[in-house]
Amino acid sequence: MIILLKENANPKQVENLTKFLKNKGFDLHMSQGTEHTIIGLIGDTSTVDIDLISSLDVVEAVRRIQEPYKNANRKFHAADTVVDVAGAKIGGGHFMMIAGPCSVENRDQIIGVAESVKASGANVLRGGAFKPRTSPYAFQGLHEEGLRLLSEAKKVTGLPIITELMDINHLPLFGDVDIIQVGARNMQNFELLKELGQIRKPVLLKRGMANTLQELLMSAEYIMAGGNENVILCERGIRTFETATRNTLDLSAVAVLRKQTHLPIVVDPSHATGINEYVPPMALAAAAAGADGLIIEVHNDPPHALCDGKQSLTPEQFDSLAKAVRAILPFAAKELVWE
Amino acid sequence: MIILLKENANPKQVENLTKFLKNKGFDLHMSQGTEHTIIGLIGDTSTVDIDLISSLDVVEAVRRIQEPYKNANRKFHAADTVVDVAGAKIGGGHFMMIAGPCSVENRDQIIGVAESVKASGANVLRGGAFKPRTSPYAFQGLHEEGLRLLSEAKKVTGLPIITELMDINHLPLFGDVDIIQVGARNMQNFELLKELGQIRKPVLLKRGMANTLQELLMSAEYIMAGGNENVILCERGIRTFETATRNTLDLSAVAVLRKQTHLPIVVDPSHATGINEYVPPMALAAAAAGADGLIIEVHNDPPHALCDGKQSLTPEQFDSLAKAVRAILPFAAKELVWE
Amino acid sequence: MIILLKENANPKQVENLTKFLKNKGFDLHMSQGTEHTIIGLIGDTSTVDIDLISSLDVVEAVRRIQEPYKNANRKFHAADTVVDVAGAKIGGGHFMMIAGPCSVENRDQIIGVAESVKASGANVLRGGAFKPRTSPYAFQGLHEEGLRLLSEAKKVTGLPIITELMDINHLPLFGDVDIIQVGARNMQNFELLKELGQIRKPVLLKRGMANTLQELLMSAEYIMAGGNENVILCERGIRTFETATRNTLDLSAVAVLRKQTHLPIVVDPSHATGINEYVPPMALAAAAAGADGLIIEVHNDPPHALCDGKQSLTPEQFDSLAKAVRAILPFAAKELVWE
Amino acid sequence: MIILLKENANPKQVENLTKFLKNKGFDLHMSQGTEHTIIGLIGDTSTVDIDLISSLDVVEAVRRIQEPYKNANRKFHAADTVVDVAGAKIGGGHFMMIAGPCSVENRDQIIGVAESVKASGANVLRGGAFKPRTSPYAFQGLHEEGLRLLSEAKKVTGLPIITELMDINHLPLFGDVDIIQVGARNMQNFELLKELGQIRKPVLLKRGMANTLQELLMSAEYIMAGGNENVILCERGIRTFETATRNTLDLSAVAVLRKQTHLPIVVDPSHATGINEYVPPMALAAAAAGADGLIIEVHNDPPHALCDGKQSLTPEQFDSLAKAVRAILPFAAKELVWE
Repeated sequence: MIILLKENANPKQVENLTKFLKNKGFDLHMSQGTEHTIIGLIGDTSTVDIDLISSLDVVEAVRRIQEPYKNANRKFHAADTVVDVAGAKIGGGHFMMIAGPCSVENRDQIIGVAESVKASGANVLRGGAFKPRTSPYAFQGLHEEGLRLLSEAKKVTGLPIITELMDINHLPLFGDVDIIQVGARNMQNFELLKELGQIRKPVLLKRGMANTLQELLMSAEYIMAGGNENVILCERGIRTFETATRNTLDLSAVAVLRKQTHLPIVVDPSHATGINEYVPPMALAAAAAGADGLIIEVHNDPPHALCDGKQSLTPEQFDSLAKAVRAILPFAAKELVWE
Repeated sequence: MIILLKENANPKQVENLTKFLKNKGFDLHMSQGTEHTIIGLIGDTSTVDIDLISSLDVVEAVRRIQEPYKNANRKFHAADTVVDVAGAKIGGGHFMMIAGPCSVENRDQIIGVAESVKASGANVLRGGAFKPRTSPYAFQGLHEEGLRLLSEAKKVTGLPIITELMDINHLPLFGDVDIIQVGARNMQNFELLKELGQIRKPVLLKRGMANTLQELLMSAEYIMAGGNENVILCERGIRTFETATRNTLDLSAVAVLRKQTHLPIVVDPSHATGINEYVPPMALAAAAAGADGLIIEVHNDPPHALCDGKQSLTPEQFDSLAKAVRAILPFAAKELVWE
Repeated sequence: MIILLKENANPKQVENLTKFLKNKGFDLHMSQGTEHTIIGLIGDTSTVDIDLISSLDVVEAVRRIQEPYKNANRKFHAADTVVDVAGAKIGGGHFMMIAGPCSVENRDQIIGVAESVKASGANVLRGGAFKPRTSPYAFQGLHEEGLRLLSEAKKVTGLPIITELMDINHLPLFGDVDIIQVGARNMQNFELLKELGQIRKPVLLKRGMANTLQELLMSAEYIMAGGNENVILCERGIRTFETATRNTLDLSAVAVLRKQTHLPIVVDPSHATGINEYVPPMALAAAAAGADGLIIEVHNDPPHALCDGKQSLTPEQFDSLAKAVRAILPFAAKELVWE
Repeated sequence: MIILLKENANPKQVENLTKFLKNKGFDLHMSQGTEHTIIGLIGDTSTVDIDLISSLDVVEAVRRIQEPYKNANRKFHAADTVVDVAGAKIGGGHFMMIAGPCSVENRDQIIGVAESVKASGANVLRGGAFKPRTSPYAFQGLHEEGLRLLSEAKKVTGLPIITELMDINHLPLFGDVDIIQVGARNMQNFELLKELGQIRKPVLLKRGMANTLQELLMSAEYIMAGGNENVILCERGIRTFETATRNTLDLSAVAVLRKQTHLPIVVDPSHATGINEYVPPMALAAAAAGADGLIIEVHNDPPHALCDGKQSLTPEQFDSLAKAVRAILPFAAKELVWE
């Protein structure tokens, strides 16, 4: 960490600062220029509060050389993390295909979709039981009943299940859930993240609509700092001025995260685009960019269903897409094996 | 609500749709054009799930005429809501000046700041006890001890207090708190909002960094739908590409919200700009635009404090600002009385 | 086009409006609801000024059904446009690989790069002669000398050349240039676009940093309305809050544009990411998403060059990338042949 | 300027770099840490190409201490610049009120509006003759005829006139124009800016929709580097995800620019909000924030006009607003005199 002091830095304040930093256990490297003094901090600065330092009267600017996260940092953990979800693996060359409906609606629907996506090669089943909705008047999910139906679909098909947790108080209901999803709106619900650090179940952490990749990694760090290293990152689109798609899928996230972290990376083209015909090209693009997995919305019977998300694929469309993804993986930026 | 059907809409599906809508209690006004059919929905459509309708196979587009919120809507509640916080009022011509430190640090600090901002005319004291921090390694607040010190400052000065609630499980600790703040990162923590609808304490709801004003009003609706009508809205800057300020303060929010809702509107120029010298001009601009209140960070002794937020004013700077705001209010877009 | 009138629309004003629309040659379909009147416009509305209509006192809202562009619209021109650039084709199954340095620096550099990218399979050479730079003090390109060197590289290698035109007054110098590039900052330089409509040379039109895809198509329409149908669209990243990459590459643009227009689509991962190690994964992702071409920065000798754009690939890196792109194309969202 | 070298910087490359910098006339201050070497550049670095330096192989990061603009920089020119427009002044305590229609439509309209806004206290007349329109099919202005009518309005009322220049080739037609407006879409039309540096007429430079304040200052620097110091900056809203207003008016720009530059700052609330009822509160807010002027759209007879921009005020509304602005100015962040 490099601290640039102001031109007329008060010597007393500079002394206070250096004392403070030495007490924190850092070696200091002072460099006196004609106008500015620069302090180099030597040691592990990942836990230094950069906001605090930069708010000091004598400080002009602070620049980290080391990233502010450690557990999630590839520099401290070179090998890809492989998360094992009841036998389905992701990371380190293992590709995970997650598929299922936006919401669990009833027994026939969820079991029907589960069986068909399994036949197409999906290895994890998704389905919402608690749904975050902008309006208090919109359908909010089947709650406990939805979780019960997911469990049944798991029993019938053998597929592990992923579903979203919106409130830490619901955790006791999630015993049979294999991956806990933290939604985009909760990416910085720090109390929730801390609690998820206390368990050992895999967590799929979605990037917030207005969050940088560094903030995503800091939120992963919240979970990992508690001891839970089974974190899967998910890019699902950010909010921009463009309205042709619901959000703007930031696929560069795959390349950037691949470099900065060892954690596996999943892409959600369904929520990112919001329109089903854009899902296949974006799914292929994500795979080509080197994503470790995809999460795709599939609904079994859109023509007769009233709630057919514009973004859902039919089982037939998903089957074609799954084949196309499987075919493209050997040519992706990073060779991946989908098993 | 106007529903535009697709050109080749399947008659059977159209019939299913109209049956469904009639069952919901709507009168339908069908209009058959040469290429498109348009359905007009008559009745209270604020609780209709627009996503569900627009996802239907036969639907080309849906347009609301009525807003999707009702309790927060000025059309259904023309008069300004006045929220009374232990005697300090906001809305309907009452201006509220909230001031205090970012975090409660110790007894002397919080009582010292409380006394000085009260002397300058602030009528509510702010101070963080639970702090949302991007990094798990940054100072997270004094928690219960912070709340205890805030209570003491309240007892000493008589100022009502506002502080942020990050987890609904902490609510029992907030008995002495007069306004519960929901931070930007929790604006769409819907489970939290629902719980706050069950109490009657005023809630200051901050706009999320990437949330539209309509989404802010929908989150207010979550609280109000539960029966708690004491909601204060807060503009605190949105995330854009500009880096000269921490966020981009969207003061048009004041004008837009004034038109669409009867709820009082507070502006937070400290978090929006992140730099203390920009706080006074933005505070004056907010007052001129017609805001019902301001929330300003003030720290008692920045030169000797280690944690002097770059955005905090000194008590002297705040005193000047408070005078300037008081002077400008009679010339604001909406005449306001600050008592 | 559907025009929704206001609730209390003044009958005289409504009459004025309907007269005005009939005079423009439209058939009107009036639909009288209980509260609102809706006017449906039948006929070619692509040239109607929607801003003018929506600004009228009696109008609540206007919604286009038909897009506001016609020449660029796939609905009026179903087959993919193939642009032929001195034998190198793009669109309709033809993939174009454009490569070369950011700026032309000297004879050896441009000819060296041209020969190496040609050997790797590039079929068009890029190189900047007039460079748009944020600072007036930065290197602005070699101007006429740069164009002369590009011509020489063309003669030596046989590769057609593309370079940016910043001012219509420079057009006479561009006689030997095969594709004229309009940069992101000039996407809405309407006077320039109109002039480019008067020639027949292919134009590569880059999306502006803050422009929607519809605006990009409207700018293409400016050129096409003048009679020049040889327009190639280029996605090169949009400006968002994320700083890990220079811009945010919006690959959904490929899927959206593919649906809405018949024009070929090129992706520029070099300018979008700004960092060379992210270029290959994003290039592969673009190809997988169905782009018709790529434009990649390559510099011959980065270690000894002073101006080695952080985003440039070495000829060896480009060679690997070109092979990888060629390998992935048969598995892309749309099967493409690169010849 | 501080240059941080990479950990394993090749000594030969470091030597090349230091030689290069010394040749440019800089004194270097080398600081050798345990892991990193830091080079401090002493001298005028405003004209150093930071992109070039940061792209070098050996360079980890570069940080400017000095801003990259000089002529526009308040540090080199402490006193406010006052621009005199045919007697109407702006800057240094002089407030300029610019008003008029979006487009010049006909003689009666422009002279009628000119007389009424003059009576209300406007001291400069605006009116578009060349209109940048997203669609090639929309009304593009009266061109030469529009300029002629503006001149006539100037003769009749004595008000200086401002209008937009879209193409440098039109400059000869602008002889009678008092302030040349560069629109948001041309803020980085560098060839145009260079030409405007060669004249001495005041230029009102609008911020681009996706441009940072630093980029705005760099574009001002383009003009000033040519010798034209009569530059007026204009904030007119930036593009964000919010759709309640056409753009997001960034009033913090006033505070930030006030600190960084001596140039006068105008705010355009009409284009920023796009909705006339939001114009007065935003105009008052801009004045309170310390803007040196306003530019407001006013149309004389909206009810009978077909083209009544949603954002235009009536002369009566403008008269009220002008009075309110005049009243608030003495209480603004910076006391300004409107004469």
